[in-house]
Amino acid sequence: MCLPGIFIVTLLTLSIPAVHVGKVLVFPQDGSHWINMKVIIEALHSRGHSVSVVRPSDSWYIKETSPHYSSITIDIPGGADEQFFSSFVSRQIQIQREGKSAWTRFSLDMELKDRFSEMHRKVCEMVIQMLENEPLMQSIRETKYDLVLTDPANGGGVVLAHYLNVPLVFNVRWTIHGEAHFAIAPSPLSYVPFPVAELTDNMSFFQRVRNFLVYVIRQHLYKQTVGPHYSALVSRYFSPEVDYFSLFQAADLWLMRVDFVFEFPRPTMPNVIYMGGFQCKPAKPLPQELEEFAQSSGEHGIIIMSLGTLIGQLPHDITDEIAAAFSQLPQKVIWRYKGDRPATLGNNTLLVDWMPQNDLLGHPKTRLFVAHGGTNGIFEAIYHSVPIVGLPLVFDQPDNLSRMKVKGVAKVVDLATLDRNIFTRALQEVLNEPSYRMNMQRLSRLHRDVPMGPLDTALFWIEFVMRHKGAAHLRTESYRMPWYSYHSVDVMVFLLAVVLFTLLAFIGIIRCFCCRACLKIKMKAE
Amino acid sequence: MCLPGIFIVTLLTLSIPAVHVGKVLVFPQDGSHWINMKVIIEALHSRGHSVSVVRPSDSWYIKETSPHYSSITIDIPGGADEQFFSSFVSRQIQIQREGKSAWTRFSLDMELKDRFSEMHRKVCEMVIQMLENEPLMQSIRETKYDLVLTDPANGGGVVLAHYLNVPLVFNVRWTIHGEAHFAIAPSPLSYVPFPVAELTDNMSFFQRVRNFLVYVIRQHLYKQTVGPHYSALVSRYFSPEVDYFSLFQAADLWLMRVDFVFEFPRPTMPNVIYMGGFQCKPAKPLPQELEEFAQSSGEHGIIIMSLGTLIGQLPHDITDEIAAAFSQLPQKVIWRYKGDRPATLGNNTLLVDWMPQNDLLGHPKTRLFVAHGGTNGIFEAIYHSVPIVGLPLVFDQPDNLSRMKVKGVAKVVDLATLDRNIFTRALQEVLNEPSYRMNMQRLSRLHRDVPMGPLDTALFWIEFVMRHKGAAHLRTESYRMPWYSYHSVDVMVFLLAVVLFTLLAFIGIIRCFCCRACLKIKMKAE
Repeated sequence: MCLPGIFIVTLLTLSIPAVHVGKVLVFPQDGSHWINMKVIIEALHSRGHSVSVVRPSDSWYIKETSPHYSSITIDIPGGADEQFFSSFVSRQIQIQREGKSAWTRFSLDMELKDRFSEMHRKVCEMVIQMLENEPLMQSIRETKYDLVLTDPANGGGVVLAHYLNVPLVFNVRWTIHGEAHFAIAPSPLSYVPFPVAELTDNMSFFQRVRNFLVYVIRQHLYKQTVGPHYSALVSRYFSPEVDYFSLFQAADLWLMRVDFVFEFPRPTMPNVIYMGGFQCKPAKPLPQELEEFAQSSGEHGIIIMSLGTLIGQLPHDITDEIAAAFSQLPQKVIWRYKGDRPATLGNNTLLVDWMPQNDLLGHPKTRLFVAHGGTNGIFEAIYHSVPIVGLPLVFDQPDNLSRMKVKGVAKVVDLATLDRNIFTRALQEVLNEPSYRMNMQRLSRLHRDVPMGPLDTALFWIEFVMRHKGAAHLRTESYRMPWYSYHSVDVMVFLLAVVLFTLLAFIGIIRCFCCRACLKIKMKAE
Repeated sequence: MCLPGIFIVTLLTLSIPAVHVGKVLVFPQDGSHWINMKVIIEALHSRGHSVSVVRPSDSWYIKETSPHYSSITIDIPGGADEQFFSSFVSRQIQIQREGKSAWTRFSLDMELKDRFSEMHRKVCEMVIQMLENEPLMQSIRETKYDLVLTDPANGGGVVLAHYLNVPLVFNVRWTIHGEAHFAIAPSPLSYVPFPVAELTDNMSFFQRVRNFLVYVIRQHLYKQTVGPHYSALVSRYFSPEVDYFSLFQAADLWLMRVDFVFEFPRPTMPNVIYMGGFQCKPAKPLPQELEEFAQSSGEHGIIIMSLGTLIGQLPHDITDEIAAAFSQLPQKVIWRYKGDRPATLGNNTLLVDWMPQNDLLGHPKTRLFVAHGGTNGIFEAIYHSVPIVGLPLVFDQPDNLSRMKVKGVAKVVDLATLDRNIFTRALQEVLNEPSYRMNMQRLSRLHRDVPMGPLDTALFWIEFVMRHKGAAHLRTESYRMPWYSYHSVDVMVFLLAVVLFTLLAFIGIIRCFCCRACLKIKMKAE
């Protein structure tokens, strides 16, 4: 009788104004982030809202025509980010494998930093092109959008929403200054690990030192990389005292692509809504060929492997070792890989160009997921209770996987040292040690046991913002305070001054009194 | 199409273990807090859970027999808190009206402090009696309770849960150290007003000074009043290093009796669930006599007045002024009042011993609520969109009403200066100025527009704790850190020391180098 399935949800509808057709202006982040945004756009469309998407003309991911949205295409030169990132990942792996010098690593990092800077410059250029295009802006104004939905990994949507004076909703894990919570919620560095530092909420003293340093250095780096572009953009269109980052902090709602099964518990804010795993859904039946392959695995079950969309080719020595390790297992393996066929590939391994990852993860035969550690894959693994062997490549992947490792649901293998023996041992450990699956089942139960699924929650709150023209009552304006006021430093200094002044005045009076008394005694004595 | 009413709530039930019959041990706070706890107990009972309530033998509010719970009665002398509080309120009003000396006010405050101290001593005595009663403890252990539900305005349930090693859920707005958020969530005093200070989230410098001082003084006062009792209790049953307040901070779930329509936006924690207004429900039809009275008001509508359960009698001069003010209005008035009939009572005013407050607030004829400012009444007014004229008496009431005043839904009248003219002007302002009703309607829409009603949300999360044997993944353990680690003071001192040492070493080397160079030059010169 206490199953949430039969929990009677009493939605309070009295006197809530209806939004008959919502109009949403989306300014997405191009690249793999688009996959997330697309899920929400399709859901909004299926609920009858009309969606317009701002896209650069050279976008690889964001198609110009779609049944789910109309496009506002901005003709801008630049592009080919995908090629850069793909080659960046390959070079990163090569550096790791070959143990290149610190200088090589540093110069690759600087190249990445420059690329990011260039990406933000391009976004700012897009916004300028939009705002200077009077007919376009006129048409946007006339459409009377209910809100701007954006991924604040770039600031285009933020500036646009502020310019149009329209409510702003984030689909977010990262802002242009790093992990999103750090932009609005108090984040004590003593127990809130800064993502990418690969730490937990239970740190030793030196881990806390590391967390502190990583935070300070990264903040500096982010500001240096993106600051000039957005400062210039903001000062072009808004009054000089507007700080570009305060426009981010003024967002009405932060739909956060995590939850507390993934994230360590930490302070949060009333306008942060957790929708981690919003893309997960029950598995659909597999295509016949895959289903037959899965069934042929018998009691041993299948392993699925995918390293995401960024990596096309892996070095041959790595794929040979991975294939050799797979070939030694009794399980069947489905490996999504576009590169050359490894020489050591066993009969039990099926190479595929693309696979229905969610359906495979939800298949009863699936025993293990070999993943690079993107949050999408991790949430799908959690949703379907499949333990992970992680092969992190770049960005947040090592940090994401380190979280799963701490929770006892993943084994992480370093690509730098990977060989067939190490990889086989990792696979066997996760396959044969029941704790991995049991821990993942526990996480899955916690993740699924919510009053409302994450996608529905996200949609509810997007429509909430439409209904009420924002969510100001959930948003603090504390970010407008100078730091010394925010931390009450001015108040403490004032109170200290009052105490000191009172004390000095008291001592002065006593002294004066004593002097007079002495004088009197002296005079009497004389 | 975007009405939440037709929002499809997809409850994820897959593989969530069922709790067939939950067993809940309740350690309530006696007095008016019991009214809140009873709502939850009745709801738990209606969902099939069995509830046991720990009560002192002399409790006025908590009846020994009930169809909704079984009792564990602890025979303890003490009691008559109600009489004290009722007389305290009367004396407080008298002091306010007559402008008594600061000394009289201070001594009444000290009397209240002593009474609170005595109340906590009694609770600790109850817990000791329970823990020393081996047959009782044996039976409690054998019952295998799923959780302890308590109001942490006293620490009885907290100690009991820790002793029994059972998950702990709070029905809470106050802990023994004041407002509950301040016990677990970061609460920057620069924009989080400490309740009772009657401030907002937008403070001037001197308001921030006041907020800071009120916080510091109150914290000291709370610790001084309750600390010795709980320290002694905790050191009697737990290891010496256990701090009594850390047992509060270790609660699995905080079901907070507010929401962000009432509360100013502020940092929160993942294990804080907002259930403000959980006692509110649609109005039922009125008893015939009241319905006829209400209808007789015609287009003018009715005013309802209730000052809560604490106050039996008001001084005659006040009731005469109130009645005279009411008699001048075209509205009909229903006034819940147990004292003598005021001499100036008009024909339009009905005095009642008790009234169905929620049904009256939800009646279409109701125009105005004259209230003392308890949170229950305020939430009922918000739920039913009825603006307020506030007559705050004691405790949190002035602060609660000041929040409503800032939101433009209440006018507050000071009992100290109340006369028929002032009161009439206040009533007429709220009746005739449309902004009060419009603002209240806006608050009501925001309050009601939630994915799940507050009582259902509370029940969902109580059962969540039953299903998962706690909610550790939502709870930080940061409260275990010493303050200098929590605020990274040790890390900053360490890093400063490293920088200083490096700088000194660098200067030392340069100096040494220069000296040598000088020496060489000198030697060459010689």
